[in-house]
Amino acid sequence: MIKAAIIAIGDELLIGETINTNSAWLGKELTTLGISINSSVTISDDQDTIISTISQLAKTNDIIITTGGLGPTKDDITKKAIATYFNVDMREDANTRKHLVEYFNRRGREITQVHFEQAHLPSCSIALGNSVGTAPGIYTNQNDKLYFNLPGVPREMKSIFEENIISLLNDFKNSMNDDYFVYKTIYTTGIVESEIAKRISYLDDENDSIKFAYLPSYSGVRLRLGVLKSELETNENLLIEIENKIIKLLETYIIEEDKPILEAFQEYFIKNNWTISVAESCTGGGLGSLLTELSGSSKIFEGGYIVYSNNAKKVLLNVNEATLNNYGAVSEQTALELANNCRVKLKTDFAISITGIASPNGGTNGKPVGTVWIGISDSKETKATKFVFLKNREANRELSKYTALSMLYRKLKYNI
Amino acid sequence: MIKAAIIAIGDELLIGETINTNSAWLGKELTTLGISINSSVTISDDQDTIISTISQLAKTNDIIITTGGLGPTKDDITKKAIATYFNVDMREDANTRKHLVEYFNRRGREITQVHFEQAHLPSCSIALGNSVGTAPGIYTNQNDKLYFNLPGVPREMKSIFEENIISLLNDFKNSMNDDYFVYKTIYTTGIVESEIAKRISYLDDENDSIKFAYLPSYSGVRLRLGVLKSELETNENLLIEIENKIIKLLETYIIEEDKPILEAFQEYFIKNNWTISVAESCTGGGLGSLLTELSGSSKIFEGGYIVYSNNAKKVLLNVNEATLNNYGAVSEQTALELANNCRVKLKTDFAISITGIASPNGGTNGKPVGTVWIGISDSKETKATKFVFLKNREANRELSKYTALSMLYRKLKYNI
Repeated sequence: MIKAAIIAIGDELLIGETINTNSAWLGKELTTLGISINSSVTISDDQDTIISTISQLAKTNDIIITTGGLGPTKDDITKKAIATYFNVDMREDANTRKHLVEYFNRRGREITQVHFEQAHLPSCSIALGNSVGTAPGIYTNQNDKLYFNLPGVPREMKSIFEENIISLLNDFKNSMNDDYFVYKTIYTTGIVESEIAKRISYLDDENDSIKFAYLPSYSGVRLRLGVLKSELETNENLLIEIENKIIKLLETYIIEEDKPILEAFQEYFIKNNWTISVAESCTGGGLGSLLTELSGSSKIFEGGYIVYSNNAKKVLLNVNEATLNNYGAVSEQTALELANNCRVKLKTDFAISITGIASPNGGTNGKPVGTVWIGISDSKETKATKFVFLKNREANRELSKYTALSMLYRKLKYNI
Repeated sequence: MIKAAIIAIGDELLIGETINTNSAWLGKELTTLGISINSSVTISDDQDTIISTISQLAKTNDIIITTGGLGPTKDDITKKAIATYFNVDMREDANTRKHLVEYFNRRGREITQVHFEQAHLPSCSIALGNSVGTAPGIYTNQNDKLYFNLPGVPREMKSIFEENIISLLNDFKNSMNDDYFVYKTIYTTGIVESEIAKRISYLDDENDSIKFAYLPSYSGVRLRLGVLKSELETNENLLIEIENKIIKLLETYIIEEDKPILEAFQEYFIKNNWTISVAESCTGGGLGSLLTELSGSSKIFEGGYIVYSNNAKKVLLNVNEATLNNYGAVSEQTALELANNCRVKLKTDFAISITGIASPNGGTNGKPVGTVWIGISDSKETKATKFVFLKNREANRELSKYTALSMLYRKLKYNI
């Protein structure tokens, strides 16, 4: 399998001022191309560090990709490091110079000597055109290894990769007659990693040719099955068989649309022409915010009520004083009234209510921190379910939101 | 300066299925503690790779922190790798076993052998309690180097770091008698990085002994002034002088409470015994969710309305049909009615309304994508302000929320 190393250059990445999304993006692209990412490192924008890191990683990788340090404010540290690494001088690239002149003319901006620096690159390298910025990418092929140096600005990095590098990598791969992993992902909802493992881990143990991975997040656990491309034909039936067994073993925890829960939920509602509204206490509007995260949400989401205080529960959604006094704000009865009244007021097909004790205060013996009631109402019935999540405020709010989506999705999809 | 290496473990990070936010978070925390991040690498969940990477990085670093690979499933192999690296056997940790039993009992879930695996750790290591999950952190001190292994789930990683590791690192730093940067942070709100730079960058140019950093995020730009601890006494007066100049130059953009805007806002409202409610369209409940993020928010936040559809604007907050027809949902008039009616209905001291075009659809020439009206209402007046943010949906929603908080905070604090 062809091996690649990704090197992200920049102090702002190391000290966490900027989250490095470039390496993940490149990782995804390279994986799609069937190239294995062997190393991914983040380093300081220091010339010696750049040279020693490239030198180290070139020993065990076929492809080296760097991002960062090519902009006009960074004094071309990456370029100088590359020239030193290859032991060559710099040259001016005529095409890049032409591109720079055009780029500035079009914007009516004056071009100065600093800008022309961008046209200089190591004499052994080739410039890769940047259609959305001024810094070209740099490509060097030496001793059957490929080196790419890209700017750190994500849209410039992506544009150069898509327009120039993908075809170079495909040519390289074909010339090497290479093997790589092919992946199949299964999305689950409403089930924890350990419970999944209990049900399906024997399949992992029994099948060495298929690599299992469990990827948990608030929104659910993704399962990933990997097979080497060279063994795909031999294992094709086995892969289908295992996938079917997993789907059977995890039954109603499978997301049928084969997507993360939010996308699956929205698509399913759009397909059925259903609408939804929310009545939120401890999540404070977070479920509404989640339901409007994706474009197109206005087709399914009408609106809702943030009933954080007891007073708001009464004024906005007519929860009975007696209900609050007798059972409390975090109770089945309150969840039922919130969900039902919300659905009726907003005339939606479904309504979800969430009322709970997010933490750290407000817990009692009978209702510990993490107790959350989630109500679901439609024209036929209104039901509420109790959960006891964690002691952490953020986690309890996130889990409440995703559990609510998961409950309604599974209720509709699997009639449970 | 003490040097640290961060190792993120997981194929899902390398192949870009998950964006690695852990390393950035740890980088920020370590920088705050005055520890230099020397290396940050992402590697495959492969035992040999884990061992060789730790072994390599331990040569040049004092602290090694890994994230990932501590879960209960078969692909979680960090613990085994650590035991092999230190050449020790595994032992069962009694406290962790006890914690697991309590954790599962509390949830009424059955505990199985798979779960008890979580209590096993290398015999030379110490378990670090995980108050939000089942996998403990692992701490090993060997030959004056510290090794920490943390779960990959961000909330668990953060909780273990905050509750256990910060104090261990501070002790270590003190025992090493190390020189490091001491930082002073100034929080700003409602002003962009380039405008701040225009006003204060001359102070940076003039003072070499003080290291300036601009740390922008949706919630505002933090300014960080750094001085070496060994030079702190010499520079103390200069630091105070520069800080005062900055406060003067940035005037009403300074957060007086010297905290991020959300904390400052909540504290200021609690101190004045004020209450607030929200009426949200394009943010879908996100401002309410933000205002309830911190414990104690029930003292200031009453609730609100998520008026995503035009129908919800009419039914929930009595926005006039004529207003919607004549001016549209994204208009000054709609923002005014939403804010005023929300405040009156919920009887709060203040109400904020947000209505805008988040993207990617719905923009016109007169109202491009990113157009957002934010209304603020109190008993004396209701006013709305127009913003044109960006073309990105997530950015527009985040900027709307934080701009609204910033507007109300600055209005009250500086009477503008």
